[in-house]
Amino acid sequence: MLTYSFAEKGSEPLYLYLYRCIKNDIIQGNLKPGERLPSKRAFSKNLGISVITIENAYEQLLSEGYIYSQPKRGYFVSDIKANAIIGKVSITEENVVLSSDKKRYLCDFTSNQTEANLFPFSVWSRLMREELSKDHERLMENPPSGGVLELRFAIAKHLKEFRNMTVSPEQIIIGAGTEYLIGILIQLLGFDKTYAVEDPGYGKVSRIYDSHHTKCIFLPVKDKGIEEGALEKNNVDILHISPSHHYPLGVLMPISKRYEILSWAAGADDRYVIEDEYDSELRLNGKPIPTMYSIDVMNKVIYMNTFTKTLSSTIRISYMVLPEKLLKKYYENLFFYACTVSNFEQYTLARFINEGYFEKHINRMRNYYRKKREHLIEIINGSSIRKKVNIIEEEAGLHFLIEVKSKKSEKQIIADAMENSIRLRALSEFYRDKSLAKEKVFLINYSSASEEELEKAVEVLGNIL
Amino acid sequence: MLTYSFAEKGSEPLYLYLYRCIKNDIIQGNLKPGERLPSKRAFSKNLGISVITIENAYEQLLSEGYIYSQPKRGYFVSDIKANAIIGKVSITEENVVLSSDKKRYLCDFTSNQTEANLFPFSVWSRLMREELSKDHERLMENPPSGGVLELRFAIAKHLKEFRNMTVSPEQIIIGAGTEYLIGILIQLLGFDKTYAVEDPGYGKVSRIYDSHHTKCIFLPVKDKGIEEGALEKNNVDILHISPSHHYPLGVLMPISKRYEILSWAAGADDRYVIEDEYDSELRLNGKPIPTMYSIDVMNKVIYMNTFTKTLSSTIRISYMVLPEKLLKKYYENLFFYACTVSNFEQYTLARFINEGYFEKHINRMRNYYRKKREHLIEIINGSSIRKKVNIIEEEAGLHFLIEVKSKKSEKQIIADAMENSIRLRALSEFYRDKSLAKEKVFLINYSSASEEELEKAVEVLGNIL
Repeated sequence: MLTYSFAEKGSEPLYLYLYRCIKNDIIQGNLKPGERLPSKRAFSKNLGISVITIENAYEQLLSEGYIYSQPKRGYFVSDIKANAIIGKVSITEENVVLSSDKKRYLCDFTSNQTEANLFPFSVWSRLMREELSKDHERLMENPPSGGVLELRFAIAKHLKEFRNMTVSPEQIIIGAGTEYLIGILIQLLGFDKTYAVEDPGYGKVSRIYDSHHTKCIFLPVKDKGIEEGALEKNNVDILHISPSHHYPLGVLMPISKRYEILSWAAGADDRYVIEDEYDSELRLNGKPIPTMYSIDVMNKVIYMNTFTKTLSSTIRISYMVLPEKLLKKYYENLFFYACTVSNFEQYTLARFINEGYFEKHINRMRNYYRKKREHLIEIINGSSIRKKVNIIEEEAGLHFLIEVKSKKSEKQIIADAMENSIRLRALSEFYRDKSLAKEKVFLINYSSASEEELEKAVEVLGNIL
Repeated sequence: MLTYSFAEKGSEPLYLYLYRCIKNDIIQGNLKPGERLPSKRAFSKNLGISVITIENAYEQLLSEGYIYSQPKRGYFVSDIKANAIIGKVSITEENVVLSSDKKRYLCDFTSNQTEANLFPFSVWSRLMREELSKDHERLMENPPSGGVLELRFAIAKHLKEFRNMTVSPEQIIIGAGTEYLIGILIQLLGFDKTYAVEDPGYGKVSRIYDSHHTKCIFLPVKDKGIEEGALEKNNVDILHISPSHHYPLGVLMPISKRYEILSWAAGADDRYVIEDEYDSELRLNGKPIPTMYSIDVMNKVIYMNTFTKTLSSTIRISYMVLPEKLLKKYYENLFFYACTVSNFEQYTLARFINEGYFEKHINRMRNYYRKKREHLIEIINGSSIRKKVNIIEEEAGLHFLIEVKSKKSEKQIIADAMENSIRLRALSEFYRDKSLAKEKVFLINYSSASEEELEKAVEVLGNIL
């Protein structure tokens, strides 16, 4: 039977405490929809508390819709995910979902979440606590639009040390995620501009441009970069790329292409390059190729990076580095926007970087994922699928591609994998122009799976192919 | 002489620790630009550490630009706010500012920050710590686009209890500030729509619409609301208002006006009302007038509210409640956006609300500010300016208006106040159409000033008027 300890109850009434315990179990899914709750009498005996207390707790849950009662049968857990429970509004569209789309897979090769236990919880928690106990005035004071001074200094220093980039803290604009910053960039650069992204690419980026009703075109990636002349031909104003680690191809744009693009950008006043380094810190081989920002002398590159990859996708801190000309425009037109990241987290992150924890954390992540990657490749090479797949490594980040030799169609392979609780995504899904896509190439994003899960997944894939 | 304790040094090298201490003092302004640092020998003697250690610390500060050296004179603190210090980029435009525009005034009647010491730091810190030590998987898991489930449940419950609003958690979309959510709303409702705001009003709102290149018109507020017929006449699609506490007039829109607006909204499919309750929890008299959301039966009202007022403007958590039809569209078109608030703060806030701390906090704030308001009015009534000012109270929030009888011009009064370190803002500044504005009415926002400061400020104002 359901059992709760009252050791941590504190001073609140017993029935409220019990109500909260049950509610939490319902929200967290420990009590399943339709599950019967203990009868009041049995529950009272089990917990050693009065029937009235149980009754009050049930009453509260009932009034809020967490449970429902059936005459003479008892109390049952409501399906809170499927139904609107507070009040009478009933929204039943399938696409209106409260929960994130976490289904538990044996192995999800599409997820780019990193493993939860890699996050340095205890250090972060300590720094946060210390910050919260320090200078209260400072914590409560509105920071400048670009973010708190300390964090921008820390990032400038990090960029110098890690990417040899010479950046002034003023140029750094901190925001709650890269997606938000792209919205700000559109306001800064203009809704009337022609934006271009790479094909294939990270789907979200073009969706954001579309969602802002700006013109966004797709330029095919060939030979590790977009084709010469494509920018002029398509009258592109702003080019959004990830030259240091293309997603999902993993290619590194060669220096000659970079200069070609910078030369295009220098050709007109309104042209800019958005250099989106979504995971540069986690590339596993440190081939030191300079950022486009560092080789640009014409103030044409907007550099973007994020802590959502290196720390956690659930900490929403990204930043961009604006070239001087745009910076002036930003402060003239957009300084009124309040910074979207809370001061508490900004100050905590500043200390996390300044005191060396960020560097340690990155090194730890890189070592961990390098080993994991090597292990996965070993598993594949030692398994029955060895002859059926060709691993396309390119520049090593948290994913690679495999090309599969199989009589089954791409769709069939994905469906068969899903049948076995393995989530796969084909490279072709990342292409706008499907005719460019190689068939039967799949993305293997191994960042969220455990080694055990990877072993099982490879075995299952062997049976499928 | 500069002195630091090495008690908290930990395991890092002494010179690095010293470097950090000095750097922090420079960033925080304890060491002023141009200030001379102690000579290495004197400093070494004073701290009881070797000259080499001091030298290494100074070298580090020098290389990062925090200090500069003058031959034979020694080391001096750089002006880090005025100059780009990391690297060679030099941005000297006056409007490119690193620091927030906090100037220390004797009294700043334009600031809407609340007093720092009212924030429940110890409770928040404890809840945050507890959350960070609990379910790590959950903290690292991407929440749905609208925010984490627990917080949306908590807000739905709060809205029920506090505003008697019947809202399903699915309808609640959490975002990093109201400004961000307005950007999302524009993407949801359309860039081609005609938006309308009140004149006078909160300037930021119309700036956001302008910045998105949407048409935004200003409708004059008369008789506690916009004029009948103004919406039809101007072909407005979306009306953005604060009916429960107009800013800055403080008026409460009467129920008849509310029905009039709802009736307009019902007249066409694409019409919506954005009900922006930026400070409803802090209205000091609890006149229970229902929200427009609650009296709307046609799914025409988008309700917005924020924790930036009740908790702190530096915690960026706001939310909106979408009517059913828009909710579907949101999930179809905009669900790809990641939630912009970090999980850590979402879970902490959920517990803060669920465990009753939010309600307690609001009550405490209301009591505190009610007393402060009464005290300020007492001071005014007991002072020499009593006969020169007329207090316009309206619905009491964290500000009121005063109408001044003086031979001086409005501009002169503001300038004279500023001369005496008092920051005043005229009501006319909030008007787009200046001809509508009453002259010599000033906003008295007393939320950030201490009682002592208020007393002094009233005395000074007495001399000026």
